[in-house]
Order: sequence, then C-alpha cells, then structure tokens
Amino acid sequence: MRQAGRSLPEYHRARGELSLLEAVARPELVAELTLQPVRRYGVDAAVLFSDIVVPLAAIGFGVDIVAGTGPVIERPFAGRADLGRLRPPDSEELAHLSAAVGLLVAELDVPLIGFAGAPFTLASYLIEGGPSRHHPRTKALMLGDEALWLDLTERLAEIAIASLHAQVAAGASAVQLFDSWAGCLSPAHYRRYAALASRRVLAAVAEWGVPAIHFGVGTGALLEDMAVGADVVGIDWRVPLGEARARLGAEVAVQGNLDPAACLAPWEAVSAEARAVLAANAGRPGHIFNLGHGVLPQTDPAVLQRLVDLTHRHGRTADR
Amino acid sequence: MRQAGRSLPEYHRARGELSLLEAVARPELVAELTLQPVRRYGVDAAVLFSDIVVPLAAIGFGVDIVAGTGPVIERPFAGRADLGRLRPPDSEELAHLSAAVGLLVAELDVPLIGFAGAPFTLASYLIEGGPSRHHPRTKALMLGDEALWLDLTERLAEIAIASLHAQVAAGASAVQLFDSWAGCLSPAHYRRYAALASRRVLAAVAEWGVPAIHFGVGTGALLEDMAVGADVVGIDWRVPLGEARARLGAEVAVQGNLDPAACLAPWEAVSAEARAVLAANAGRPGHIFNLGHGVLPQTDPAVLQRLVDLTHRHGRTADR
Repeated sequence: MRQAGRSLPEYHRARGELSLLEAVARPELVAELTLQPVRRYGVDAAVLFSDIVVPLAAIGFGVDIVAGTGPVIERPFAGRADLGRLRPPDSEELAHLSAAVGLLVAELDVPLIGFAGAPFTLASYLIEGGPSRHHPRTKALMLGDEALWLDLTERLAEIAIASLHAQVAAGASAVQLFDSWAGCLSPAHYRRYAALASRRVLAAVAEWGVPAIHFGVGTGALLEDMAVGADVVGIDWRVPLGEARARLGAEVAVQGNLDPAACLAPWEAVSAEARAVLAANAGRPGHIFNLGHGVLPQTDPAVLQRLVDLTHRHGRTADR
Repeated sequence: MRQAGRSLPEYHRARGELSLLEAVARPELVAELTLQPVRRYGVDAAVLFSDIVVPLAAIGFGVDIVAGTGPVIERPFAGRADLGRLRPPDSEELAHLSAAVGLLVAELDVPLIGFAGAPFTLASYLIEGGPSRHHPRTKALMLGDEALWLDLTERLAEIAIASLHAQVAAGASAVQLFDSWAGCLSPAHYRRYAALASRRVLAAVAEWGVPAIHFGVGTGALLEDMAVGADVVGIDWRVPLGEARARLGAEVAVQGNLDPAACLAPWEAVSAEARAVLAANAGRPGHIFNLGHGVLPQTDPAVLQRLVDLTHRHGRTADR
C-alpha cells in the first residue's frame, strides 16, 4: 500500500510545510513517515518514504518536486551534451538515504522495501521536464537517436543501481524498480528501448541476493518482458490476476491487483473487490496482495485498515 | 487521423477565438474545420469536428469545454436526483449537428464518420466534473450503487443514440463510439458496468445499416468485449496489431495502431514505425491505418502528409 501516508492525518502533521525534497533530507523524519502506515495498519512490509527523482536531485541535476504537479526539471535533458550532467550519486550524496534506511531497519520488525526509478521513466521526466501524458519528446529522442537514448538509459541504470545499492547495504530487504511510465510503450518498443537498461539494474540487484519487484501500471502487454530478471512483477487491476499468473508461470510472483479507486466505494463493495483478487489467486504461493497503484489521497484510512485485516484473516485461513 | 486540425495553421485561423462549443454551434464553420485536414492531406474519410460532450451541452446539463483542460461540468452528477437532468436531445437541439453533417455530405467525396461518447466515458465526465486520471468518484458510484449506475448509463446510451441517429440521418456513412476512459477498467468491470450500455448503442447503429467503430485507448485487455456488436475495434500502439487481429478474428476490422507520439520523431523513424504497422497487418483486408489516438497538437503537418502518402502508396502496391 504505497503512498498510504498521503491519506493519513499523522503524515500531514509530521511533514508539515516541508517540501518532499526537504523531507527526504531528514533521516529521522523519513523513518517516521515510513513507519506511520506500518504502525497504523500492521502491514507486512514497509515501503521507504522517498521519490524516484531523489537520486537525480542528489547529483544536482536541478529537480524540484512541486505539490500537485510532481517532479519538475529545471533544465531538461536535450541532447548529448547533457549526458555529462548525469553520474551515479556518491556515498556522501546518498548519506541521508543510507541513514534513513539504517534507522528503519533497526526499528522495524517487518521487511523494508527500498526502491528506484527505472531508466525509461526517469528518462521521460528528464526529457519532458516533468510528468507527461504522451511522452512526445521522450519518444522522439528514443526513436530518432537510438545511440544517445541507449547512453542516457545506461547512465540512468547506473544511478538506479547506486541508489538501490545504498539502500540494500544499509539493510533494505527487497527493492522495487518503478517503471511508472513503461505502460505507454508498445511491447516492441519496450523490448528495444527500455528492457536493456532495466535488466541491468535487476541483474545488479540479483547479485546482492535480495528480491526485486518490477513495478508498472498499464503494463498488461509487457508482463513477460518485465518478468525477465525480476522475482516479482507488479500488475495493476487491468490484468486479471489469474491470467497474469498463467502467463508468468509459478516461478514469478505477482504483486497486486486491487484498483485503488475501488477503495473509495462503500466497504461492502471494497471487500467484494478484495475477495475477488484473493479468489483469483486461489491460494497459490507467490502473491503479494496490494493495490495496483498508490493509495489515492482521498482514501479513508478506516477502509485501508479493514482491507489489511481482511487480507490477514484470509491469509490465516489459507495457511490452515 | 482524428484531431488533425489542432496542428494546422488554417484550423487556428478559421476557429479564431471561438470556444469549442461556440464553434460547433456554427454548421458552416464545423464543415470548414472538418474539411481542412481532408483537403490538405487527402485522407480517405472525414471525422466530424465536434466533441463527445456536445449532446450534454445541448440538453443544458451545464458543460463548458475549457482550453487546455477539457470538459468541465458545472454541477456534476451526484445522485439519483440528477437523473432527471439527463434526456436525449430533441431534433431542435440537434439541428446544428444535422446541418453541419448535411453540408459536409454535400461537399465531401469521401465518407464522413460521425461519433458519440460511450456511456462509461460520459458518466466519468459527469461524475468527476471533468477529465480524471483515476476516476475515483465514478468507480465509487459504479461499485457502490449498481442500480443507479445502470440507470445513468442507460440514459447516456439514449443520448448517444439520439446524437448518432441525427448524424446518420443527415448522411454520415459510419459512426465511431468513443470510450476514451474504458481503459481504466478491469475486464470484469468493463463487462459488468460498461459493456451493456455501449452494446445498446452499437445495436441501434446496426439497425441503421452503417458500420460502427468502437474506439478505446489502453484497452488491450478489453478488445474481445469491445468487439461485440462493433464492425471495427480501435487499437492503440500498446497492442501489437497482429495479436489484435488474431484475437478478434477476420470478421472484425481493426483501426490503428501508430503511436501519435512517434510522429514527433524524424521522418526516417516515423516511416519505419508506419511500415511496421502495415507489415504487421500483412495485407489482410479489414485494417484502417490510423494513429492509435488523436494527433498531438505539436505534430508537424508535413510529417502527417508524408504518412498519408506512404500509406496510400502501400495500399496501391498491396492492391496490385
């Protein structure tokens, strides 16, 4: 239940007027914000409070995270000369991140999941200068200058690896590679332009011996490609869970796939939706019950609590 | 090549400062704006200049179309009492629309494609009050009050039928049913909450003996369901065309599936993408070559011209 904080009063109290980048620079605050939903809901893992553009901000690329908009890039990536502005963050630049993970690991009695942005999604932010619906400049560069595109995504893979390595070295138990925008690609384009760099990241994670979750939205047509090198593949609600499991086979776990918008419905409807997800998995191992995307800010925390409890009751019944 | 106008200088000159709703109230202007891309590019059909919320505006529901935002609803649909605000437009309220179609049919030597919004998509606009990324209120109502939801979508089906009927009666050769937001639904939810009302519209169209194109974006998991009662199914670039044809069978035509964002790339890349689409169809009948979504406003008209010419050359070669 990623981004559960946004719907919690204690989150808004603790973060106050701090911008997201200011907040992530304070390890104690990051720890508190990460712990809040775990404390409140009793979920089975914690997701680090951060943002996929944090490593880009750390190396001074010129990133701001604007409330209500998302990441905004001061001088977007426009050509080969901008490659020089991209390098993996060093340990000093990652010190806040490592410190936050360290604090959390000492306090948590559930696993901590770290994360990083996948190269395609980071490239889109850098090239478009912010969130984009159609990713036109990104696709124009990708299709028009493949050599530059591959150099760019390789650098972004190195940045993701450095960030994930710091998190794992500090004690994170698993990592999630976020390819939030990959769903805008055709399978052929995903394979040609995105998969290579993401697989580099996943291969690095595999060497550290921690499981990797590969997350996407609207990526129903890409599941098999996203499963290569990943232990878990995220599925949103657009793909029936049973179909995803059949396509991916028993060796790959899935995470999902309740529609976050469904959580705005009356509880009776929410519970029917959750039960349908659980029924679709039919008790097979390798399913992380979760929303298919982040918690919507207007979600009622009481509904999320009932959802966690329902899932735990179901799990206990299934275990017997 | 829907929405091609937005990227044409003559479009902006002709429309001037008029709002979209002001423009669609002037049949001569609608005819001119519809004809412009046909004249310039020599495409094989015309798509009526209009918007899916026009029938809602016509019955006085209180709709504005705000430049850069999209449709905005003055008093969104909030409950059963609002059903009374929804009824099919009468012939007087559709007079502008019929007049525009009449003018066009007299002038065009290619078919005119009319269109209407599908009930699910219209419902989302009405309930959210405007364009929505996650459709939370829509899904909450849909899941929480199925009886009201079915009544609402039935009314919206009647509105779509009335609008399409006026267009066909005035001479439109084919119609397109736009379910722009259907891709946010799981297949199970699509079948339960959206398919019924859309099929009512498609069944009405079938009685008039004109072909119906069923359009969606991100609807790769819904193609079979959207094909029921439709002659043509729209596919965006996320679904390989060959796969769509295999799934839908030879009886259903497809429309698509070039990525509009790809048209921003250098011509060499655009043409490679277009050729890949044509190659995937492998000369089979029943493929309407098209973009998988509307033309992006920043598209270079010269690129679209080359795209039309490439497609026509390909067609002539394939015919031989």
